[in-house]
Amino acid sequence: MNPVNQAFEYTPIGIMHSPHTVPHETPIQPVFAQACPGWAEIRPEYAEGLRDLEGFSHVYLLYHLHRAGPAIMQVEPFMDTQSRGLFATRHPCRPNPIGLSLVELLAVEGCILRLRGVDILDQTPLLDIKPFVPRFDQCQDARGGWTDSVNDEQARTRGARGFEKGNL
Amino acid sequence: MNPVNQAFEYTPIGIMHSPHTVPHETPIQPVFAQACPGWAEIRPEYAEGLRDLEGFSHVYLLYHLHRAGPAIMQVEPFMDTQSRGLFATRHPCRPNPIGLSLVELLAVEGCILRLRGVDILDQTPLLDIKPFVPRFDQCQDARGGWTDSVNDEQARTRGARGFEKGNL
Repeated sequence: MNPVNQAFEYTPIGIMHSPHTVPHETPIQPVFAQACPGWAEIRPEYAEGLRDLEGFSHVYLLYHLHRAGPAIMQVEPFMDTQSRGLFATRHPCRPNPIGLSLVELLAVEGCILRLRGVDILDQTPLLDIKPFVPRFDQCQDARGGWTDSVNDEQARTRGARGFEKGNL
Repeated sequence: MNPVNQAFEYTPIGIMHSPHTVPHETPIQPVFAQACPGWAEIRPEYAEGLRDLEGFSHVYLLYHLHRAGPAIMQVEPFMDTQSRGLFATRHPCRPNPIGLSLVELLAVEGCILRLRGVDILDQTPLLDIKPFVPRFDQCQDARGGWTDSVNDEQARTRGARGFEKGNL
């Protein structure tokens, strides 16, 4: 396994702006933050790369989980109370703390992406943007492991973490 | 935009094994590599984090695109002939060359994940594994921008890049 001894250095392509400033009050996934606006500010040198993006309704954001603690192999997922293997969860305390969110793209205005369904902390460094391509990314009939046994009410209440309490 | 001047260093959690050894003959997405087996070999120190993963039918793999060239802001997507903004494509020549594939998980055997639908080059350094959670990740009614106008036949022929020619 020699190639895995290398390390790779990444530099942010931009920064996230959102109303979420407290990690434990931040919704754990876009599905629990549906009404939440936010925007991504992209470095001017990458503006040209945003061309043609506006035709997509959804984008994946990859970002550095800058407030995550050290990696732990057994975690209690936010959505449940039973401990699980880290890689069977989306918990932020990972060996490489890269976050992945599928958010709604409302508009592209110069170097700004206007977004909805933002579950990302304010000031999070953004690493990449990928379009959601229905032909590649739609996955019907998937089994969700332990998450399938969490009921919708519990998932939503615990997942939203107080965000938009009025709607719960 | 001060926080974006930082750099982040990631170290592989494991390595990919696949039949794909030539970049330009590698299918561009799992959907064009459906029958293709492969496996991920995870570092032993992370084995405990794989617990509970087997219940999931699909996982996202995040990996370092180790054969990608320097970033270019205008690219010709593999699936089409017209130039597009980089971030409106899944092209590998990105500022942070992180690949994202949604693959089928067949089994977890110790530190080995048996996979199907592998569109990843052999020896690719693996950065993270995230479970596909239907509640978070299913996205109906998405618009696919320019990719919606590529017909299925062209997408499949160009996307498979000769892989399993007999099936095209």
